[in-house]
Amino acid sequence: MEKNIAVIKGDGIGPEVVSETMKVLDAVGKKYNHQFHYTQILMGGCSIDAYGEPLTDEALSIAKSSDAVLLGSIGGNTSTSPWYKLPPNKRPEAGLLKIRKELGLFANLRPAYLYPELADACPLKEATSAKGFDMIIVRELTGGLYFGERSTTEVNGELVAHDNLIYSESEIRRIAIKAFEIARVRRKKITSVDKANVLDSSRLWRKVVNEVAKDYPDVEVEHMLVDNSAMQLVANPSQFDVVLTENMFGDILSDEASMITGSIGMLSSASLREDKFGLYEPSGGSAPDIAGKNIANPIATILSGAMMLRYSFDLNKEADAIEQAVRDVLKEGYRTVDIYKDGDKKVSTTEMGDLIASRV
Amino acid sequence: MEKNIAVIKGDGIGPEVVSETMKVLDAVGKKYNHQFHYTQILMGGCSIDAYGEPLTDEALSIAKSSDAVLLGSIGGNTSTSPWYKLPPNKRPEAGLLKIRKELGLFANLRPAYLYPELADACPLKEATSAKGFDMIIVRELTGGLYFGERSTTEVNGELVAHDNLIYSESEIRRIAIKAFEIARVRRKKITSVDKANVLDSSRLWRKVVNEVAKDYPDVEVEHMLVDNSAMQLVANPSQFDVVLTENMFGDILSDEASMITGSIGMLSSASLREDKFGLYEPSGGSAPDIAGKNIANPIATILSGAMMLRYSFDLNKEADAIEQAVRDVLKEGYRTVDIYKDGDKKVSTTEMGDLIASRV
Ligand SMILES: CC(C)[C@H](C(=O)O)[C@@H](O)C(=O)O
Ligand SMILES: CC(C)[C@H](C(=O)O)[C@@H](O)C(=O)O
Repeated sequence: MEKNIAVIKGDGIGPEVVSETMKVLDAVGKKYNHQFHYTQILMGGCSIDAYGEPLTDEALSIAKSSDAVLLGSIGGNTSTSPWYKLPPNKRPEAGLLKIRKELGLFANLRPAYLYPELADACPLKEATSAKGFDMIIVRELTGGLYFGERSTTEVNGELVAHDNLIYSESEIRRIAIKAFEIARVRRKKITSVDKANVLDSSRLWRKVVNEVAKDYPDVEVEHMLVDNSAMQLVANPSQFDVVLTENMFGDILSDEASMITGSIGMLSSASLREDKFGLYEPSGGSAPDIAGKNIANPIATILSGAMMLRYSFDLNKEADAIEQAVRDVLKEGYRTVDIYKDGDKKVSTTEMGDLIASRV
Repeated sequence: MEKNIAVIKGDGIGPEVVSETMKVLDAVGKKYNHQFHYTQILMGGCSIDAYGEPLTDEALSIAKSSDAVLLGSIGGNTSTSPWYKLPPNKRPEAGLLKIRKELGLFANLRPAYLYPELADACPLKEATSAKGFDMIIVRELTGGLYFGERSTTEVNGELVAHDNLIYSESEIRRIAIKAFEIARVRRKKITSVDKANVLDSSRLWRKVVNEVAKDYPDVEVEHMLVDNSAMQLVANPSQFDVVLTENMFGDILSDEASMITGSIGMLSSASLREDKFGLYEPSGGSAPDIAGKNIANPIATILSGAMMLRYSFDLNKEADAIEQAVRDVLKEGYRTVDIYKDGDKKVSTTEMGDLIASRV
């Protein structure tokens, strides 16, 4: 199989973790006889530095014509980096929002899984971490407050800012269908999160989810308010299988969920549209403070690469091979510094990449 | 001192926990020679049952003309209670939103404090709970998505729902001032939470907070994105002193913060306006499943009563007496079932109320 992958190394630790992922993908290609062609494009701060904007039309069109996009991370220190002196639509994050919208990546999947090997890093007490948890947050990614019309205007002598939270039935339906399809091949339970006791958009959300649910009688559905969900994630994470929610709630809850695993450096994510196309990136941020030191954990990005093989290229065996290689390397005791504890074998970013590539 | 208190027992466990609070307030009144006059009004489900609406104008005007409002809790089981078959503006929660808006209660204060005696109940691992934490969430309560214009309309043959997130400079300024004033008498640190990398309202929020900060050079200010805040609460709660945020983020984060204490039945809250007037209620919900069983924990409501004495009536000594009584009773080993563990003395709602009243 031949595939064209648009590669966005991005800012901070992005270049380092993406390089290791390409190394692992190449090992997979060699073993299973596939050719992955990479075209590197700029996005975020590095694109601002080069072109004065976070995502050029040319880069966007390369991404559009690829079979999938692999992304490291974008952005820098919001207090100190000059990128954050620019107007909002010229900052690194604007590139990310633009690529999501322009590529139609409405479905963001963020698994939050407690690795038994890393249960020590879980910030929850042992009674909870011992039970383990394994959920996937399905977050709507191209609607809601992120993409509604917004403005700041002067009214009666003072500034008034507004952001519009807007959802249509069809936007809700397509993400709900994604979530139900995923639930079907997992533990068949959906927790749909909203704030239906306050928001019209949440009441419409609940209505549409209930309609879609009729086509999936084998999947159990519950509705949970977002405030309660934020509590339940801490109190009893093992209750969750698939968590379905809108863009802003998904942003907050997926970060909370990744934190309770204690190993955000291990968590991959995929942003998909209706067909097979997708963008794959680690859940963590650009971590500018540790960039260039060869200490970042590349596993989240490597596992994002595995998700790419699985979801976009239907290469399940190959994705399994990467995931198994990661498990093997962890079992052998290798750890980057973020997940290291006494007695482990401490390795660098490149060493971790080499180890996983060699185990594939 | 004579004070008129509007009392809303409400639904679920509300009546039970409010009765115990009145018992404790009366003990304070007796000891310190104050008279508290209670006028009971209906709100929430009980008001729907009696009058067909969650808050009548008459009840509202009694609340308005009182010196402070004491509230138990409102609402029922959203899946099974007939109240949730009514249109949104007739449901129990609509009463709560109406009273907040009509009374101008723009500042919601929710302390999240880890009681050393109850550290066992903390869902975070011991390394974290041993450090303890003590924060107060200052949530804007009468603006944002909760009170912006909303609608659901048909557009191109499908329903489209929108909710407007709107903030003016003056709305942000008054809540920021509250937070800075509170920080000054605490550990002098404010974490202002927003989503300034996406929302116009958050960028205005940040700007106004920075302006207000100039008047409080003794208070340290940091800005934190809401997704990161949801992570930091779990990873390192002791970093927070005063957390200042808008209405919806405050709803989510204050519930997350109360859950990490492990003892939501102990957490009070106050909703204030610029003057001394306020509404005081426990942080937890109406818990319809345990209503009427005399097992609910009244401490959160009793401590809300203490907040009322302190903030609305300037009765600091009296508030101290209640808080000390609660600490004493806990130290003596008395626990309602929600915070009970082996070796403690299990007591009912009314017994707990009696104990605290007698220790005042
Ligand atoms: C960088 C930011 C705009 C983005 C978001 O809020 O979606 C990030 O937090 C994420 O979750 O991918
Ligand atoms: C009942 C509901 C409308 C309310 C809110 O969202 O404000 C509650 O969750 C709260 O936090 O007081």
